[in-house]
Amino acid sequence: MPDPIVFSGGTAGAWNVVRITAVRGASLQPVDRVDKGARALADAAWALSGLTSNLRYTNSAEKRVLDATPSILGRPAATRAALIPITKSAGWWALAQDERRAILEDQSHHIAIGSDYLSAVSRQLVHCRDQAGAVFDFLTWFEFSPADEPRFDELLARLRASPEWRFVEREVEIRLEKRA
Amino acid sequence: MPDPIVFSGGTAGAWNVVRITAVRGASLQPVDRVDKGARALADAAWALSGLTSNLRYTNSAEKRVLDATPSILGRPAATRAALIPITKSAGWWALAQDERRAILEDQSHHIAIGSDYLSAVSRQLVHCRDQAGAVFDFLTWFEFSPADEPRFDELLARLRASPEWRFVEREVEIRLEKRA
Repeated sequence: MPDPIVFSGGTAGAWNVVRITAVRGASLQPVDRVDKGARALADAAWALSGLTSNLRYTNSAEKRVLDATPSILGRPAATRAALIPITKSAGWWALAQDERRAILEDQSHHIAIGSDYLSAVSRQLVHCRDQAGAVFDFLTWFEFSPADEPRFDELLARLRASPEWRFVEREVEIRLEKRA
Repeated sequence: MPDPIVFSGGTAGAWNVVRITAVRGASLQPVDRVDKGARALADAAWALSGLTSNLRYTNSAEKRVLDATPSILGRPAATRAALIPITKSAGWWALAQDERRAILEDQSHHIAIGSDYLSAVSRQLVHCRDQAGAVFDFLTWFEFSPADEPRFDELLARLRASPEWRFVEREVEIRLEKRA
């Protein structure tokens, strides 16, 4: 079942903000902390909400690779995280399914690249495009250890250099550190 | 952009209810009229809301066929309509994208069957699975003339006889007639 996930930026939450970078388009209001939960915190400066959902592009062979190394959230060693909300262009969403799949995987190797980092980087994809009034299409969430942060940087660099990223219209990168 | 669509069942709205049939699973509370708009009517007995969204299975060749005969809603001759909310099983949603596409099109010819009725039946697909608390996955909407109602019945029968429909867990059929 789809699972509601809300990221609240403000003065509460388990994650300290290290930095917020507007990668493309407008940034988000600076905040000190981020909470990840099932509902918005009452006094949040901003709250980004969405749901987990079904796979949209992954085929059965790729799914077997992903299922062999399930993403475990909340690992004690994973004291670093990144929240990266993303919006894609209207042009992307107007494409047929096979055209989007061709860009995402045949040209950009999005799923294959992600598979190189399964054990180092735990991740969760939250969908929000199909919610009324949503500003972002996706809220992407990643957890990793301090030692694996360079690998996460490499993952980001590879994806951002891919043809798929030409369709990214807005991207904000929020780097986080778990509070002791 | 995703467009919010709300169907309100109650005592107001442009459509008179002819009959409500629980095709599979629980029915909806009987009502006299249905309103289709951008927001819920205040005194509705039930309100089903969702958004239009991007194509999920249609490939570029199929999209060209669909684009050649765009669905025009609100045609004066189309005084009959059907609202059919549908929920698919957890098993469906757990499948990889290529597995769902294989069942939907290669085995069930869903897109091809629909294409046979493009000029007779105007339709709109409203997505609600990715909304918090949604009960249905889709709200499917069809408009047609009284003369084309037998063709619409045929379309429904063909789809319901397909392998894809084994994954339909709940389906309610609401037949409507436009108020003079």
